[in-house]
Amino acid sequence: MTKIHVPVRDAYDVIIERNILKRCGEIISEVSKAETCAIITDDNVDKLYSETVSESLKSNGFKVVKYVFPHGEASKNAGTLTKIWSFLVQNDITRSDCLIALGGGVVGDITGFAGATFLRGIQYIQIPTSLLAQVDSSVGGKTAVDLPEGKNLVGAFKQPALVLCDPETLRTLPEKFLIDGMGEVVKYGMIADEKLFDLLLNCNLENVHEYFDTIIPICVAIKKNVVAEDELDTGLRMILNFGHTIGHAIEAYYHYETYTHGCAVSAGMCIMTKYCNTPEEYAKLKKCVENYHLPTDTDAPIMELVNLCGHDKKRAGQKLRWITCNPIGKAQIQTGTIPEFRAIFEREV
Amino acid sequence: MTKIHVPVRDAYDVIIERNILKRCGEIISEVSKAETCAIITDDNVDKLYSETVSESLKSNGFKVVKYVFPHGEASKNAGTLTKIWSFLVQNDITRSDCLIALGGGVVGDITGFAGATFLRGIQYIQIPTSLLAQVDSSVGGKTAVDLPEGKNLVGAFKQPALVLCDPETLRTLPEKFLIDGMGEVVKYGMIADEKLFDLLLNCNLENVHEYFDTIIPICVAIKKNVVAEDELDTGLRMILNFGHTIGHAIEAYYHYETYTHGCAVSAGMCIMTKYCNTPEEYAKLKKCVENYHLPTDTDAPIMELVNLCGHDKKRAGQKLRWITCNPIGKAQIQTGTIPEFRAIFEREV
Repeated sequence: MTKIHVPVRDAYDVIIERNILKRCGEIISEVSKAETCAIITDDNVDKLYSETVSESLKSNGFKVVKYVFPHGEASKNAGTLTKIWSFLVQNDITRSDCLIALGGGVVGDITGFAGATFLRGIQYIQIPTSLLAQVDSSVGGKTAVDLPEGKNLVGAFKQPALVLCDPETLRTLPEKFLIDGMGEVVKYGMIADEKLFDLLLNCNLENVHEYFDTIIPICVAIKKNVVAEDELDTGLRMILNFGHTIGHAIEAYYHYETYTHGCAVSAGMCIMTKYCNTPEEYAKLKKCVENYHLPTDTDAPIMELVNLCGHDKKRAGQKLRWITCNPIGKAQIQTGTIPEFRAIFEREV
Repeated sequence: MTKIHVPVRDAYDVIIERNILKRCGEIISEVSKAETCAIITDDNVDKLYSETVSESLKSNGFKVVKYVFPHGEASKNAGTLTKIWSFLVQNDITRSDCLIALGGGVVGDITGFAGATFLRGIQYIQIPTSLLAQVDSSVGGKTAVDLPEGKNLVGAFKQPALVLCDPETLRTLPEKFLIDGMGEVVKYGMIADEKLFDLLLNCNLENVHEYFDTIIPICVAIKKNVVAEDELDTGLRMILNFGHTIGHAIEAYYHYETYTHGCAVSAGMCIMTKYCNTPEEYAKLKKCVENYHLPTDTDAPIMELVNLCGHDKKRAGQKLRWITCNPIGKAQIQTGTIPEFRAIFEREV
């Protein structure tokens, strides 16, 4: 068991432990005074883990209700959010009850937003079951839904009361989602930890499972340090967006259908590194992401992606911010106008 | 000009001044670095005040865009909120821009919620044009929309960056809305200021306009004191809910059609006072609200109203909280079970 304390205003722990799902109710009872836990999950995760979680909650004295929505990014919208809100009223959930986000990033983001807004805020707990959610989205309190115009355009900052990561869930994770999460794992190496990057450079999609007990805590600790410095995303937290400015544009360009988030970030990181680092470093990153079957580029014309970056929510006034990691393991926040950002991709490489 | 400073974490001023709408852009330019101000308003208020506000903003260098939705509580829902979010994206509103809530409580509540959630939070400014919004809803950072199941069931705490009250707008306010606001004004006398109550007892709907320069600052100052003590509504702020537990039930019972908020609160205050104070105090309150054509009771059976209170969001676990003002001018927070709350209304009075 590894416990990582996240020292923000409403501080909380991230606990990483194999088979923690089976005893989640015991741990949750230490941080929650809820009478009722409302599990929010998707139809895929529901079949795999709801019963285990629900049994553990019930045997620790909680009443349990459950809301299941169809899996996938397409559900992360205002319509699903509204249905969750109504479900919570209809089940008499009060300000002192607790939401349990059981699933991947979509479940975590929308449940967190429901927690931030239902009755103007009730407690929620993250039980991330995907790699992406375990190393990234479950920690830090960013909650959101998508709009038809773009991803994560509305949301709130609301820290979870607890995060429980069970690396065992990654063994049964479909390969597509494992690959997706590895995109973010490589990102942590790029922005903050050359040793992690080197470890990843020497592993592959088959043997990486053996290293998750090391990898997940390293990633969570990096994220924790960044979040603790910059809870409300006004500065340092930007470094977590390495690969995301272009990555979000890739997702939007393909209407969120072709690329998973991690794959889009992988291509985004490679494109940034191609234009901003030495050819040797670019080659290393390419090799690293290829180990995990992640893309190194896309068919979308780069200038069309750059144009899509204008709608990115990180743009402040006419300025845009983006991240470079040069050398590998050290992130820099860059600020410039849209023409300055565009100029990066106009040079021959 | 009266300026009241609200000393919460994100502190701000409430400025009360006749004809302040005409110079709002000048004052807003002192607190906002926005390039664009997005005015959110309803179709009634739009016709009366949008041009004045827009001209003042433009002549102070702001770009102005405007979203208008149909007036009335029926618009305060997730559908309107989603349309506002999309409007903001489509107009390239960024994190450094500003929303202007121009209108009554519905406009203020939904614009504030949009401000709390769009891009995970952007600045918003309140320009309340109804009495209810000037003395109550524009101050304190409570934002919300309704669900089909009840009023204000989802929302967020997000303080405005500035509140500008123009008492001149009350001269043209339809009588129905003036009456509505007087319900909340009487409430302030009941919970915190016997002198204000006595002033109100000796005025009427016709001559009260002469006293608004005194009345509005008193009400805002009371609200400010309560909000500063209890920003996140975990304690003292409950006293602002005098008359609201029953009041919300009255609104719900009549499907938000028969009673305005202020009228429901007025009936709610009278019902509570009838059962909790001396007959003399009850008679004084009845006289006072009748001065402003406010209701003293409803046709709804009291026990049906009490049952509806179970869904009220202030209920924590199986406990309910409600407010009494005995004697007039001094509020008490009461906590009890639903049967204990019910017992109040079972005694003969």
